[in-house]
Amino acid sequence: MNNKQPVIYIVEPYGGSARWHNPNLPMVFFDDAVVTRGDGVFESLLVRDGHPVNLQRHFERFSNSAEVMDLAAPSFEKWEEATSLAIAEYGDGEAKCTWTYTRGRKSTGHPSCWVVVQPIAEEVLHQREKGVKAHVTERGWLVPADLPAKTLNYAATMATMRQALKKGFDDVIFTDPRTGNVLEGATSTVVSFKGKKLRTPASPGILPGTTQAALFEHATAEGWRCKSKEMTIKDLEGADSVWLVSSVRVATRVKQLGGHKFKAPDNEQEIRDLIDAALNS
Amino acid sequence: MNNKQPVIYIVEPYGGSARWHNPNLPMVFFDDAVVTRGDGVFESLLVRDGHPVNLQRHFERFSNSAEVMDLAAPSFEKWEEATSLAIAEYGDGEAKCTWTYTRGRKSTGHPSCWVVVQPIAEEVLHQREKGVKAHVTERGWLVPADLPAKTLNYAATMATMRQALKKGFDDVIFTDPRTGNVLEGATSTVVSFKGKKLRTPASPGILPGTTQAALFEHATAEGWRCKSKEMTIKDLEGADSVWLVSSVRVATRVKQLGGHKFKAPDNEQEIRDLIDAALNS
Repeated sequence: MNNKQPVIYIVEPYGGSARWHNPNLPMVFFDDAVVTRGDGVFESLLVRDGHPVNLQRHFERFSNSAEVMDLAAPSFEKWEEATSLAIAEYGDGEAKCTWTYTRGRKSTGHPSCWVVVQPIAEEVLHQREKGVKAHVTERGWLVPADLPAKTLNYAATMATMRQALKKGFDDVIFTDPRTGNVLEGATSTVVSFKGKKLRTPASPGILPGTTQAALFEHATAEGWRCKSKEMTIKDLEGADSVWLVSSVRVATRVKQLGGHKFKAPDNEQEIRDLIDAALNS
Repeated sequence: MNNKQPVIYIVEPYGGSARWHNPNLPMVFFDDAVVTRGDGVFESLLVRDGHPVNLQRHFERFSNSAEVMDLAAPSFEKWEEATSLAIAEYGDGEAKCTWTYTRGRKSTGHPSCWVVVQPIAEEVLHQREKGVKAHVTERGWLVPADLPAKTLNYAATMATMRQALKKGFDDVIFTDPRTGNVLEGATSTVVSFKGKKLRTPASPGILPGTTQAALFEHATAEGWRCKSKEMTIKDLEGADSVWLVSSVRVATRVKQLGGHKFKAPDNEQEIRDLIDAALNS
């Protein structure tokens, strides 16, 4: 068990030094839009070997989320600086880094921004290694086509996760109630492997995955055939293996999809190496 | 302009005294689920003549939200006590009271609960008196039928509001993209008046309104005919007047609905008196 303390750095929204914040003290005010409206955006990054992984893609999505939400463009230098300071203080080992950018306090009108570096939950490391049983469920809400932002509004997703856990599953794969097509995991992108083919669902209402993007770019260069296309649950069941990819858990194999069980594929280690290489490239 | 300080009381989730919190100091930790996931529920209440208005209906909806979200049942006595303490300290005059109940800190597992009593925004008082121009727009997301809770996930709603404001409107009325039927306002319930008939839209995906419920109960007793039914924009345009009712703004008349303008109805004062009486009964 990793008992390291979280490290927090406040990012000044208009420039100025990043400031260390004691994680044992509160820092968010009652009138912050993140508390009253869930009004903010975030990114979760993996920290490996002292560096944030896939930094550029995360920053691009973060900037895009901010733009969609009418928040001022974040400064790459400032977020990178705070991230580096937090990682340096945290020290060695894998970690989870989170960027949070909220609309801020109603009384001041200034955004609230901070970086946290903290241990990866044991559960996440366990799932990364052992895989998950995924419950398949229709998503009862549609992500608005004009709000393709990584907002902090996960209450409905978390409620669905709690229901899945009660049924003995570890995760959720959402389908579109209108078409039945596969959408995404609760906090991950679905990727299937069949022979040398990688597939990920294409559909409105899927948040573009940074890990999936890095994987597809690297795998394509390595001679795999990668494509985003509309996918059904039957398509997934017909694959050699199905994975949920995300920044911090990286890749967890779907051992069971609803009632359908997958055998571990012969190329499991090859796939893990491919994904690791994609993140290190 | 009302410059009174907000008053905050922390509600202990497992009992114990309500604690005053200095509004000039932060109180929420980086790992609170409300900050990382928007994972919490709330209610906004009107304070009038030293009392929270429509208290029982708000507490019922609050309890229901908590239940849907798998949060422990809140204690009426504890929330009422903290509300009374906050109102007493705030002093005379109308005010806005907010109850917030989050899943709490990941590191402790204990929920976070607090009550805020603060001045009503000038803008809200202005709209209550002068009415609003409402933009009509399809809601690009569906409230999940199995999550009928008043959660803190308003990022998409707020984004829609910003778009409406840019177009010169003051508020939003959502329609269902599947049926075209009227749903609700951004943070209010739609009520139409025609002769002695009151109508409010009935549809899955509408959060039951506490003010509308109080109004319908009182108006029915006073001889008005009140009904929830499926409604179209044409139905609204054919009404004598259309109102957005909610706890703190109470009732604002829709002066304009998309391109359709409404004249002030002859019975505007009668309607206002009816709604006020409903809240005081």
